Amino acid sequence: MVQLDDLDRAILKLLKQDARLTISELAERLNRPESTIHFRIKKLIEKGVIDRYTIILGEPLKPKSVVAVYIETEIPVIEDFLEKYINHITKTLSMLPNVLAVARSGRNGIIALIGGETEEQIEKFVDDTIRTLPSLRKVEVFPFTNIVKGEDVIGFLVDV
Amino acid sequence: MVQLDDLDRAILKLLKQDARLTISELAERLNRPESTIHFRIKKLIEKGVIDRYTIILGEPLKPKSVVAVYIETEIPVIEDFLEKYINHITKTLSMLPNVLAVARSGRNGIIALIGGETEEQIEKFVDDTIRTLPSLRKVEVFPFTNIVKGEDVIGFLVDV
Repeated sequence: MVQLDDLDRAILKLLKQDARLTISELAERLNRPESTIHFRIKKLIEKGVIDRYTIILGEPLKPKSVVAVYIETEIPVIEDFLEKYINHITKTLSMLPNVLAVARSGRNGIIALIGGETEEQIEKFVDDTIRTLPSLRKVEVFPFTNIVKGEDVIGFLVDV
Repeated sequence: MVQLDDLDRAILKLLKQDARLTISELAERLNRPESTIHFRIKKLIEKGVIDRYTIILGEPLKPKSVVAVYIETEIPVIEDFLEKYINHITKTLSMLPNVLAVARSGRNGIIALIGGETEEQIEKFVDDTIRTLPSLRKVEVFPFTNIVKGEDVIGFLVDV
């Protein structure tokens, strides 16, 4: 169990906002010696609290429209087939650059986050590529009209 | 319209994997002069292609379980009330640390990503906090059994 104190949390919050902040900038903002900040970040990385540093991509690369799609397959008699079929769909979807994220949901469900220029274009993709798959029980489409919390998630997920 | 060439894309891919790579490390990996890499990154930031630098949090801070919840309200006679009610729910959910992301979906829908220690704990939260809200037409829960693409998204979204 990893214990974090207020200083750890303050460092993490600042790095989440801007991971380019230097040790000396963090030291100044948090009113602590550079050596302390350096040591804390080293520990946070060692303990796996900080997994890695990355960039968030901006508007020019972000799809204008995003929808979440829930796909549920029929449950066939042969269980082994279900597993292979679900894996096949998730792998195929994962390879597509406009599919931002894919997760399995329960035994026979898949959730995908799909981007596009317009909602109509995504609807067409869903109709052509997903609804045509055999043995589906349900396909539900949930448009992301406005992201209220976690709004950077699209810029985080988008492929280059 | 922003035009990116192969070098821009190669830089972005490397920075997405590890944003701590220095100009000289990037120059060496991509076999280009440091001045070129420096100039390209400057331009990518200026054009907003790189929005910002951040950290992804690791296992110790990530919830063990995550579900997506879709909430749909009744459409009342007074349209203005709907807007206020949906805003109220999204704001309330956004303030909770176990709610990783919230988006409005269409006119009367909300999608939320909720984390917890176990699926049962999240189900209890959904029962106690969401299903008790008045005037809901539908609450659907989709567990994230296994993230196949975009697996870092939880470490990106989690609050400190």
